[in-house]
Amino acid sequence: MTLSFPRPRLLIAVLLLATVLRADDGMWLLTNPPLQDLKAKYGFEPTPAWLEHVQKASVRMNNGGSGSFASADGLVITNHHVASDAIYKLSSTGHNYLEDGYHAKSRAEELKCTDLELNVLMSIEDVTARVNAAVKPDLAPAEANVARRSIMAEIEKESLEQSGLRSDVVTLYQGGQYHLYRYKRYTDVRLVWAPEQQAAFFGGDPDNFEFPRYNLDVTLFRVYENDAPVKVEHYLKWNPAGTTAGELVFITGHPGSTQRLITMAELEYARDIQVPNVMRYLKNREVLLLSYSARSEENARRAKDEVFTIANSRKVYDGRISGLLDPVLIAAKEAEEAALKTFAADHPELGATDAWDKITAAQLVIARQALRHNLLEAYAFNSDLFGKARSLLRAATERALPNGERLREFRDSARTEFELALFSEEPVYEDFEILKIKNYLEYIAMELGAKDPVVQAALGGKAPAVRAAELVTGSKIHDLAFRKKLYAMSPEELAQVDDPMLALARAVDAEARAGRKVIEAQAEVKQQAHARIARVRYAKDGDKVSPDATFTLRLAYGTVKGLQQDGVDIPAYTDIAGTFVRATERNNVPPFNLPATWLAAKDRFKGDTPFNFIHTSYSIGGNSGSPTLNRNGEFVGILFDGNIHSLVWNYAYSDTVARSVSVDVRGILEAMRTVYGADELVAEILGTK
Amino acid sequence: MTLSFPRPRLLIAVLLLATVLRADDGMWLLTNPPLQDLKAKYGFEPTPAWLEHVQKASVRMNNGGSGSFASADGLVITNHHVASDAIYKLSSTGHNYLEDGYHAKSRAEELKCTDLELNVLMSIEDVTARVNAAVKPDLAPAEANVARRSIMAEIEKESLEQSGLRSDVVTLYQGGQYHLYRYKRYTDVRLVWAPEQQAAFFGGDPDNFEFPRYNLDVTLFRVYENDAPVKVEHYLKWNPAGTTAGELVFITGHPGSTQRLITMAELEYARDIQVPNVMRYLKNREVLLLSYSARSEENARRAKDEVFTIANSRKVYDGRISGLLDPVLIAAKEAEEAALKTFAADHPELGATDAWDKITAAQLVIARQALRHNLLEAYAFNSDLFGKARSLLRAATERALPNGERLREFRDSARTEFELALFSEEPVYEDFEILKIKNYLEYIAMELGAKDPVVQAALGGKAPAVRAAELVTGSKIHDLAFRKKLYAMSPEELAQVDDPMLALARAVDAEARAGRKVIEAQAEVKQQAHARIARVRYAKDGDKVSPDATFTLRLAYGTVKGLQQDGVDIPAYTDIAGTFVRATERNNVPPFNLPATWLAAKDRFKGDTPFNFIHTSYSIGGNSGSPTLNRNGEFVGILFDGNIHSLVWNYAYSDTVARSVSVDVRGILEAMRTVYGADELVAEILGTK
Repeated sequence: MTLSFPRPRLLIAVLLLATVLRADDGMWLLTNPPLQDLKAKYGFEPTPAWLEHVQKASVRMNNGGSGSFASADGLVITNHHVASDAIYKLSSTGHNYLEDGYHAKSRAEELKCTDLELNVLMSIEDVTARVNAAVKPDLAPAEANVARRSIMAEIEKESLEQSGLRSDVVTLYQGGQYHLYRYKRYTDVRLVWAPEQQAAFFGGDPDNFEFPRYNLDVTLFRVYENDAPVKVEHYLKWNPAGTTAGELVFITGHPGSTQRLITMAELEYARDIQVPNVMRYLKNREVLLLSYSARSEENARRAKDEVFTIANSRKVYDGRISGLLDPVLIAAKEAEEAALKTFAADHPELGATDAWDKITAAQLVIARQALRHNLLEAYAFNSDLFGKARSLLRAATERALPNGERLREFRDSARTEFELALFSEEPVYEDFEILKIKNYLEYIAMELGAKDPVVQAALGGKAPAVRAAELVTGSKIHDLAFRKKLYAMSPEELAQVDDPMLALARAVDAEARAGRKVIEAQAEVKQQAHARIARVRYAKDGDKVSPDATFTLRLAYGTVKGLQQDGVDIPAYTDIAGTFVRATERNNVPPFNLPATWLAAKDRFKGDTPFNFIHTSYSIGGNSGSPTLNRNGEFVGILFDGNIHSLVWNYAYSDTVARSVSVDVRGILEAMRTVYGADELVAEILGTK
Repeated sequence: MTLSFPRPRLLIAVLLLATVLRADDGMWLLTNPPLQDLKAKYGFEPTPAWLEHVQKASVRMNNGGSGSFASADGLVITNHHVASDAIYKLSSTGHNYLEDGYHAKSRAEELKCTDLELNVLMSIEDVTARVNAAVKPDLAPAEANVARRSIMAEIEKESLEQSGLRSDVVTLYQGGQYHLYRYKRYTDVRLVWAPEQQAAFFGGDPDNFEFPRYNLDVTLFRVYENDAPVKVEHYLKWNPAGTTAGELVFITGHPGSTQRLITMAELEYARDIQVPNVMRYLKNREVLLLSYSARSEENARRAKDEVFTIANSRKVYDGRISGLLDPVLIAAKEAEEAALKTFAADHPELGATDAWDKITAAQLVIARQALRHNLLEAYAFNSDLFGKARSLLRAATERALPNGERLREFRDSARTEFELALFSEEPVYEDFEILKIKNYLEYIAMELGAKDPVVQAALGGKAPAVRAAELVTGSKIHDLAFRKKLYAMSPEELAQVDDPMLALARAVDAEARAGRKVIEAQAEVKQQAHARIARVRYAKDGDKVSPDATFTLRLAYGTVKGLQQDGVDIPAYTDIAGTFVRATERNNVPPFNLPATWLAAKDRFKGDTPFNFIHTSYSIGGNSGSPTLNRNGEFVGILFDGNIHSLVWNYAYSDTVARSVSVDVRGILEAMRTVYGADELVAEILGTK
């Protein structure tokens, strides 16, 4: 059954149980919005047409963010910090579009991005029954995992062939539901306009996750098909009047992941193993990048985007560990789990009494494997070249397998995306790559011990600096033609290729794969157990809780609302005049230096134009670039951040001091006109052309 | 026997075995300099008077650096980065002497430092026999450790009472020798002149451990006694003519520690446990400090000195891990150890055949305890307040014990130094302290697991942010009068004091002490085994190798010499004109911004004045501030750094690309006159007053 619009919801009877008004909690499927709450609290009932329109006007950026169509001619607005990776790849020593911004004065000047893919969600279909039917209850975890991967790949392939659309089976409620998502896919995306990074990211890392803020964190792309701008039916109208405090707002976007529904065992794993492992790695990289950046301005340019990404993640994990060590949060989770367990025990017919223990046992196995898995698989030697070498090595082997038995990234339906990344022509800087690999070799030696066989294999009997230089300067993987040649080879031909980076990928591949297999098998165990817990949850509470985020389209809502912090009242809006005040207060020293264009435009600005604002909508990483909408479905801003208190939203929602942060539509328009002379784009967006 | 001057050396017969000319290796005791090498290679024979003069003109800074007397009226020169902690503590929001520099125009304006102690080495006495006699061979390690600590404390106390001098028993050759060092102690040290930190540390962390360099890394103090400048017989004459390339130079200073003589088991422990543990902690702190600094200029001021210290240490450990993972270095160490073991096996009368196995076993026990020891003992919650609370708590208990049974820092002979630190009135910034403790609580939770009982005790059932705020704002430890009151209390009275920081110290003390006890007992085992290995080494090679550094006075030597790096010839000297070139090249952006005083003086400078220079003298952390001398024992510069290649000197000496870096005497004098108008100080130093 296709869960598109307008269909009655199956769980209406259960929903009636949940009549107590709740906080503005939840990241809802657009096929299952919290209609009763919206009606009761805000007197608002989104129509099926409203829901379909905002769904199809919303865009997923394949590098991990969100966006929305802004004109019938395929203009897309997203955050500058979502776009910056693409802008970086378009830059070089001669053209620094991150630093200087970019403005295509005509369509001919719109710059094609090297590897950016955009997706628009066209439909959702519930395939839970079909997936579950294929995974026989008597299968061992590893076999069950293959069976599940296999049926998911089959469904995806079938759907791709039938519809021509990107087709992903999405796991919701940790395995409680499976939905088939079909996306329209766009791979010709061109840069239209971007402000200077200094305007987009004014205040830099110090102000990141803080409020008040003054950021023009926006970029415009245009989507092309067949070398012409795409014509879209669903795009968001911008309302230049913006919002007022207390107003109901929505965000539609692609929250990456939350961990609301995990068990206590999983929470403890996050607290004691996962977050510590990741934090060590992030801090190691942050120190490396900052010290590399400090050596020269060219280094700083090369590393800037990565510095931002890493510092940003580090803050996210800082927020998470604060939450995980908060006894109030833990007590609430414990109470919730205890209640679910009691309900499960009272209802043995739900077959979930041992589900928590299964998860605990699986989590222990994962915990033992986690560090090696991160180091040998997930982090990929912190090297683009290594990542590409490994992709080539595995592609040869995996393609020979039936679609369903392959590692997930090699399934047929993911081929376009895979090849886009493999054949991306982003620049590789030899010295930077050598430094990163040297650091990584030292890092794995310190994490696993220098005598660990896989560390010895990685070092190849050489000092890290010597080995890193040999891997980078001796390899031809950076060469696109070479990669294309290798991609066409059989495993036997590839085995004859003598390239040090490929050899490194080969040397660690057996262990990397074995570790991944263990983790995926245990994930399967957990998934089956979670599916049973999901049944308990439904039976007990209905769908009072939305599924955890899965980098798929969700609707959240809240009100524009200030907060009290350290005894101070912070209003919901900042204005453009405040930007200049903040820059002066910090002596215009980076990252509080405004670009020259802004300084020149200072007197022309309408200073009281609202610039950034906060609201209580539930968001998380991946929501960056989410359009912020009013009840008419009009664009009134673009989400670009959450404040520091919102970081705990990964584990629990609260709206006392946690806020989402958006750029106000009025600030965007004012800056486009006043600073950037982008009147033709404003006219296109407002339809006044 | 007092090993002062001029005494015949006992090992002369053995020394004759070592006639092959060696590199300029070694950190030599001034009582046992490499006379034959100096004579053979450089035709230079330091006289006993030469040695005594440079010894008594050299100064140890109790915060971990070196210096030298520069005038008969007690002027002392050291590095700015050695002095910066003291300068920081003299600064406040209104007076930023780190940023602005300081110049006392009269003696009345010389500023008394809060807690700086200077020591001058007066004599060395070999007490090996007495120490070893007190440690009966049949004692268990913990008892042997107490016996050793006891005899050392007894010797020190006896010496203090007899001589009135600070008396330390120093362990050389990992337990091969024990020497009693007697120091003249100075605790009234006043700031006379310091340049701006930006001149001292131009290029900041990015240029740290690099060459070419352009740093005026110097500060002048004056030592007082009874409120008057001290009159010293031994001070170094400055030679304004400096040095020339190829010239023989010496450094006298206090290298902190090296690990040249450790066994392979200890080396592997360093590589797999110790360095990784320390690196994680350093990177965690560096990220914390940088992100705190970025929030405001006042934060940056508060954290600046600590940022430098941490980034500096991190680079040191970076260099170490590079060395530890270098198979060439490891192979050399393995060969050396194999040869020693063979010699030991061939000479069973030396009784050392099982010494290596003893060390390996002890190291395994230490390895299991190391992390907890660091976290509960060494790092002291990264909080000055916690450190002081713990000092107070332990002082009450330890004072009740016999001198020899106390923890080493509580022995009678260390009391002055201990009280200086405890009663230091350095400023405490509440928000900064809270942030550090919050971070530390999260850090130990991540390192040890949140459920670890000691972590639970530290958190006290609260979230880290809440707990940290309560510990800092609820404690009165910051108040000097309160500390003095507590210091006067008996353990029973102290137990009644209700202060959260004291309570935290109490809560973790049992485990912290127990862990320390394990480590000290195993260190004793290692020490006994090392003493046996030292006998093998002597019998085989004589004293071809100098003892590892122990933060005691050493003499090293080398020649002024450029190097080839990445195919480029780097001359031995930079000049002042180069400073302005480097600033321009980096657009005067921090940390490459010159202070206003320098920019104003640009045209007055003699641009070709030598500024910094490199030489092959063997140095390590602790040598900072070491006078660099010519063969007449005249001051020709001051050591302030080693290049990146020198960091491996911790484990092995090499002079192909590793260099020490000094500020040239000519650059110092030129800047003092041209920029700072410090003519009266120059006149005092040059004796032209």
